[in-house]
Amino acid sequence: MSKKKFAIAVHGGAGTILKKMMTAEKEKLYKKALTIALEVGYDILEEGGTAVDAVEAAVYELENFPLFNAGKGAVFTHNGKHEMDAAIMDGSTLKAGAVTCLNQVRNPVVLAREVMEHSEHVFLSGKGAEQFARMRKIKLEKDNYFFTDERYKQLQEVINEEGAHLDHNINVKEKKFGTVGAVALDVNGNLAAATSTGGMTNKRFGRIGDSPIIGSGTYANNNTCAISCTGHGEFFIRAVVAYDISCLIEYKGMTLKQACKEVVNNKLVKLGGEGGLIAIDKNGNVELPFNSDGMYRGYKSSNGKELIAIYK
Amino acid sequence: MSKKKFAIAVHGGAGTILKKMMTAEKEKLYKKALTIALEVGYDILEEGGTAVDAVEAAVYELENFPLFNAGKGAVFTHNGKHEMDAAIMDGSTLKAGAVTCLNQVRNPVVLAREVMEHSEHVFLSGKGAEQFARMRKIKLEKDNYFFTDERYKQLQEVINEEGAHLDHNINVKEKKFGTVGAVALDVNGNLAAATSTGGMTNKRFGRIGDSPIIGSGTYANNNTCAISCTGHGEFFIRAVVAYDISCLIEYKGMTLKQACKEVVNNKLVKLGGEGGLIAIDKNGNVELPFNSDGMYRGYKSSNGKELIAIYK
Repeated sequence: MSKKKFAIAVHGGAGTILKKMMTAEKEKLYKKALTIALEVGYDILEEGGTAVDAVEAAVYELENFPLFNAGKGAVFTHNGKHEMDAAIMDGSTLKAGAVTCLNQVRNPVVLAREVMEHSEHVFLSGKGAEQFARMRKIKLEKDNYFFTDERYKQLQEVINEEGAHLDHNINVKEKKFGTVGAVALDVNGNLAAATSTGGMTNKRFGRIGDSPIIGSGTYANNNTCAISCTGHGEFFIRAVVAYDISCLIEYKGMTLKQACKEVVNNKLVKLGGEGGLIAIDKNGNVELPFNSDGMYRGYKSSNGKELIAIYK
Repeated sequence: MSKKKFAIAVHGGAGTILKKMMTAEKEKLYKKALTIALEVGYDILEEGGTAVDAVEAAVYELENFPLFNAGKGAVFTHNGKHEMDAAIMDGSTLKAGAVTCLNQVRNPVVLAREVMEHSEHVFLSGKGAEQFARMRKIKLEKDNYFFTDERYKQLQEVINEEGAHLDHNINVKEKKFGTVGAVALDVNGNLAAATSTGGMTNKRFGRIGDSPIIGSGTYANNNTCAISCTGHGEFFIRAVVAYDISCLIEYKGMTLKQACKEVVNNKLVKLGGEGGLIAIDKNGNVELPFNSDGMYRGYKSSNGKELIAIYK
């Protein structure tokens, strides 16, 4: 019997990520973190585990690294708080769970899965979502768990900039769309996707980006593909990016590669939307397209191929 | 010069709406409210106004009638509060604005439009969204504005049921997916959609439905169609309903009628998703499909056709 193909891909955000702005040491840290997340997910798949388990585990690892803007490394809001979002989708059932505006949940992806499997809802928000988290014994943390010096400095820089530039574009100096995500195909042919984010530094007004929006930042469907996005979320919502790729495959007969190129390098660029995504199809093909300077990314497939990369 | 075609459609929710449960007087009230909303929007289009103006005005009217679950008639949450959502999308620019978990905003659709036109974001939530509303001088109301005897009775009934039925399905007796919405085509060929809702009676955990989700409950694109949904939101999110119809037209070459049938009467039914939607395409064709017992609905077109209906 021939062994069934399986594969996993992860990302840790896209944006203005240039080699000249990076130290060798920092680069090593990022690559190591991506590798750990990939390996954790890959091991689950290799042992015959589900795509849902693999993407949840990989995103859980990425949330725990302060390097990435999700979980432990979530950026600060304008008020010096954290507001985290996450989503997960099971391509075999089209079931999904999503959470937004969390302040206290240690691993938002775990709560998203709990919503998918143990609530009658898909999308929960804020204090209500955290009430559900407490009922389900999901691990919460106090503010200090999410405090990191680097993120706090980033907030101060942006707040100071704001004084000088009204009508400013947040993160003018260095656009980084911090998000983490994973997509996987398991040995049973099931696809899954998960995404988690701390949103934008200095964000206000309870802004929700594309990450927790099923169809925009996160989508999985066994008939087509699994997608996790990272980028300027407003554009990804307006372009319904993740489901668009699925539809181009299902309705227009494009390959995963063609669909990714059309959406990320054509449609999003025309709209002005910067960022990228990771994608895997039902045949185990992996694409990691982005239209920004860089994207923290990697994949590992049972066909022996693997990659960890940051720049173009 | 031949006059350009224009048209508008509205809905006031779908669900278990049966003639035997309605009085003649109540039926008259519903029909009158739908007619008023249609006329207000139609008049704007007839005077050469934009599709965005027309759908906002029609939804604004529907929000002000206590008959419908949006704005003034919003249902109660489990905690005896109101949490309202809305979205609007301009098919000519693919710009969109959405708001969720509002407690105090008199007309959520007005805030959604303000987000679309006067913020750098697409989707704002909760207290943050209301902070933005105050900055933009959007009209707020105290809790008593949203209090209606009928909605309060509905909450008590559901809460009492809950005591007897654990693992209950909310609204077992009478499934009504209260939402209001409008879609329009203006004389310049621009499409727009808007949706507004108070969510589910007795809802908890900051649950967000499909109404404010661009691509699921609300979508507009001049190349294809404008859609506003009403139904069991969780299924509409998982099926990315509104954008699915757009993709079936754009990528698979379906007519609006074919696409609506495929999504509402085939895909949603298979998934178990009850509800309906209103749709208009760039040629002014209107569809009002639903798979539930009834949907409060109507349309009026410059070709002289018009309809107000409730049941199948």
